[in-house]
Amino acid sequence: MKQHTVDLNSDLGESFGAYIIGQDELVMKHISSANIAAGYHAGDHNVLSRSVKMALENHVGIGAHPGFPDLQGFGRRNLFLNPEEIYNMVVYQIGAVKAFVKVHKTVLNHVKPHGALYNIAARDKETAQAIAQAVYDVNPELILFGLSGGELLKAGEKIGLKTAAEVFADRSYQPDGTLTSRTEPNALIHDPDEAVHRVITMVKDGKVEAVDGSNIPIQADTVCVHGDSEQALAFVTKLRQDLVKNGITIKRVGS
Amino acid sequence: MKQHTVDLNSDLGESFGAYIIGQDELVMKHISSANIAAGYHAGDHNVLSRSVKMALENHVGIGAHPGFPDLQGFGRRNLFLNPEEIYNMVVYQIGAVKAFVKVHKTVLNHVKPHGALYNIAARDKETAQAIAQAVYDVNPELILFGLSGGELLKAGEKIGLKTAAEVFADRSYQPDGTLTSRTEPNALIHDPDEAVHRVITMVKDGKVEAVDGSNIPIQADTVCVHGDSEQALAFVTKLRQDLVKNGITIKRVGS
Amino acid sequence: MKQHTVDLNSDLGESFGAYIIGQDELVMKHISSANIAAGYHAGDHNVLSRSVKMALENHVGIGAHPGFPDLQGFGRRNLFLNPEEIYNMVVYQIGAVKAFVKVHKTVLNHVKPHGALYNIAARDKETAQAIAQAVYDVNPELILFGLSGGELLKAGEKIGLKTAAEVFADRSYQPDGTLTSRTEPNALIHDPDEAVHRVITMVKDGKVEAVDGSNIPIQADTVCVHGDSEQALAFVTKLRQDLVKNGITIKRVGS
Amino acid sequence: MKQHTVDLNSDLGESFGAYIIGQDELVMKHISSANIAAGYHAGDHNVLSRSVKMALENHVGIGAHPGFPDLQGFGRRNLFLNPEEIYNMVVYQIGAVKAFVKVHKTVLNHVKPHGALYNIAARDKETAQAIAQAVYDVNPELILFGLSGGELLKAGEKIGLKTAAEVFADRSYQPDGTLTSRTEPNALIHDPDEAVHRVITMVKDGKVEAVDGSNIPIQADTVCVHGDSEQALAFVTKLRQDLVKNGITIKRVGS
Repeated sequence: MKQHTVDLNSDLGESFGAYIIGQDELVMKHISSANIAAGYHAGDHNVLSRSVKMALENHVGIGAHPGFPDLQGFGRRNLFLNPEEIYNMVVYQIGAVKAFVKVHKTVLNHVKPHGALYNIAARDKETAQAIAQAVYDVNPELILFGLSGGELLKAGEKIGLKTAAEVFADRSYQPDGTLTSRTEPNALIHDPDEAVHRVITMVKDGKVEAVDGSNIPIQADTVCVHGDSEQALAFVTKLRQDLVKNGITIKRVGS
Repeated sequence: MKQHTVDLNSDLGESFGAYIIGQDELVMKHISSANIAAGYHAGDHNVLSRSVKMALENHVGIGAHPGFPDLQGFGRRNLFLNPEEIYNMVVYQIGAVKAFVKVHKTVLNHVKPHGALYNIAARDKETAQAIAQAVYDVNPELILFGLSGGELLKAGEKIGLKTAAEVFADRSYQPDGTLTSRTEPNALIHDPDEAVHRVITMVKDGKVEAVDGSNIPIQADTVCVHGDSEQALAFVTKLRQDLVKNGITIKRVGS
Repeated sequence: MKQHTVDLNSDLGESFGAYIIGQDELVMKHISSANIAAGYHAGDHNVLSRSVKMALENHVGIGAHPGFPDLQGFGRRNLFLNPEEIYNMVVYQIGAVKAFVKVHKTVLNHVKPHGALYNIAARDKETAQAIAQAVYDVNPELILFGLSGGELLKAGEKIGLKTAAEVFADRSYQPDGTLTSRTEPNALIHDPDEAVHRVITMVKDGKVEAVDGSNIPIQADTVCVHGDSEQALAFVTKLRQDLVKNGITIKRVGS
Repeated sequence: MKQHTVDLNSDLGESFGAYIIGQDELVMKHISSANIAAGYHAGDHNVLSRSVKMALENHVGIGAHPGFPDLQGFGRRNLFLNPEEIYNMVVYQIGAVKAFVKVHKTVLNHVKPHGALYNIAARDKETAQAIAQAVYDVNPELILFGLSGGELLKAGEKIGLKTAAEVFADRSYQPDGTLTSRTEPNALIHDPDEAVHRVITMVKDGKVEAVDGSNIPIQADTVCVHGDSEQALAFVTKLRQDLVKNGITIKRVGS
């Protein structure tokens, strides 16, 4: 019998100075990979250091989470940078996180772009290549996280990086495998049971039901989860328990 | 006969977006070490990449130049951070520069703090220790630049780092070896011939004439030079020529 | 019988982009003056607009709350600016808040410096004068808030501004009328009943018991309150009730 | 005989901290309107104060020059803000400039959006309306500068603002009156004589030759000029002289 495994990843280290976002201590207990903000769209050097330490103590895989340099927009605005700028800004941010991983005597496991950068990288080949190249040039052993089926994973594979295909428990999918836009009424899966069930099917069967009722193939190496509310935390707890109950082992990608 | 050598270092990569500071292409020709701004007090990821490339092409030693996170104040304002914050902000900035050195397939040679951070590190033991520890933890092979005779060098030596004692051609010294404050009328050496002569004496004899006429011992491993004006560039050219004429080899620290 | 009145002021509008600080909707119900962050140490243009609208709806006096341009330090770090820079940065921030007051068809009532700027203005005559001059030059009808007995109020009065002397319910005072430093063990008044009692005495009798047991004179035009925790909100509610029970009317300064 | 007049405007006050952009003292001598950066895409409170003072001394009309909050991109990147955010960010920036105009005892004459904001406002009705509304709400007497024939001017006129139609000496026009995109080979007019001749024709005859050779109607109330290079300054000097020689009076809009 095949042993199914999946990674649970979450965006962490997004506080800045006196501004606190997230419940990092709590969500850390439930995940296997932490995407740590690198100071551009969120986070600062003090938060970064604490987050790396916290991930280490919780045996959670540490990833750099580069985004656009736009604290006011939290990295959710596309700055339309050219590939060279994208490359440079990703190199910079991986470097910053890597230094904290070094001083805490651990290693950097993966890179996952944030927000608008993640979305563009999923559909724009040039942006995807710039990011993949940056990751590869800093360290070819890093694992690149990206939207399952998207351009970033293709660019990563092409350049020789290990990749992890990310899926979303609470988002619906189009027949072509892309996420339904958040502006559409049926973009979100609201029922926790349904959301968990979909994840289990994605992990075990490599399939998900698209919005038109068709079953489409999907690769699910890692699931994006959130810890910024009571509800979000309750869902992660449930997801974790139900995955385990269904014989799926939660472990970080690459381990 | 003893072969005298000295390093010439300059602060580079201080442009930001559309804002240009310095004449990096020109001054690169005359120096042996470049202190490259890391994006906190000056510089950005694009400038950083270009600066590392330019240093590499000019066979100039590459150093990280961390400063306070204060673009508006150009790192010249003391933010009075505690040692832990100082440590974190230095780790972050070295990490960023290190990543560019990596993708350009070269190595990081040294670290020199900038502006207010440099000045505080020269006299405050706790700040000095925090910086030295950050440099050491990121990479114990890095060379730490600091004011000749100052606390930063002592902290660096204590922790086991190679250090380079920096002297200034255009600044006068107090009998205790500290720089005369810029608010004093006799802080600056205005005559280029005198400035060059002082550097030669510092390098060859390990001495400099203090403001009270006494000769004090001083170690001169590296001289800080500027390229931000025609006059500054002319001085660097002259300094370089006169040093060579006086049998002093210009080479980067650690080479 | 003399009718006693006092103002209750709170710092609001400190959120920034996706970062939320404070419970402005809740604390607005209990205060008579809102000090609205102007985008330098906290706040942004969207938050500013919402905060002015909220203050207007709650019949709360609107004040500009200028601070140092240091989001990462939340305005709590002294940037050691010269008086001309202080003047300019205060003019800028009052102007920004004033424009929102204008488009919401209301008026600006007061100015209270934030954090490190507030503390320096209380003891440094030059900083105090620069702030008072900035307020006066933008609009001589504005009311200047400052530490009771401090330099800022003196500078304001001298230049011809109306002023409001601010007291703190939860801080102890030295015999010379200054606040006990937060680094001292007895800096804070922890007992809510005692804190309320002290405010009532300050308002009605113009006196407060200093840390040495002596009774010192103090002017209490406005009390600084906070709404950033359940406890803080409970205290404001209690303070308001007890003030009213003791015959003290809560109304905004200048009304 | 009709007396022709035109305004010459230039973007000024774009320096930031230690970063200097432009030759404001020199170009001030040649223009009738200064668009002063407000601290979002360029400029800071100290530069703003100096720029307002300089404009006042040179009898130049003072305008606020709001842009996107993006110093690194110099306001040239579209942040895709919604109309409410556009409105708020314009209110904020006009307010800041207005306060400096007030403390320097002069008045604000006009508002001209900067960079990406200017370009979007020329073609997007919603952005144009948000800007026009912000200007009107802060002060309905302000003059709104925008691309001749563009949406911003239409929105301004509709709301009841005085407007000034801006033309460019060095840019070619499409038959529909829009500017040829800078990515096209024939976007720029390189010959100074031709550029000056085109301005004279625009001002006197209300016409310009489009790229297809047709003569199209155009309103020219103000011409955008630059002072950031020797060549740019020489062109402004020539333009000014040739306009005067051709009987065109240079004076600020609204005077």
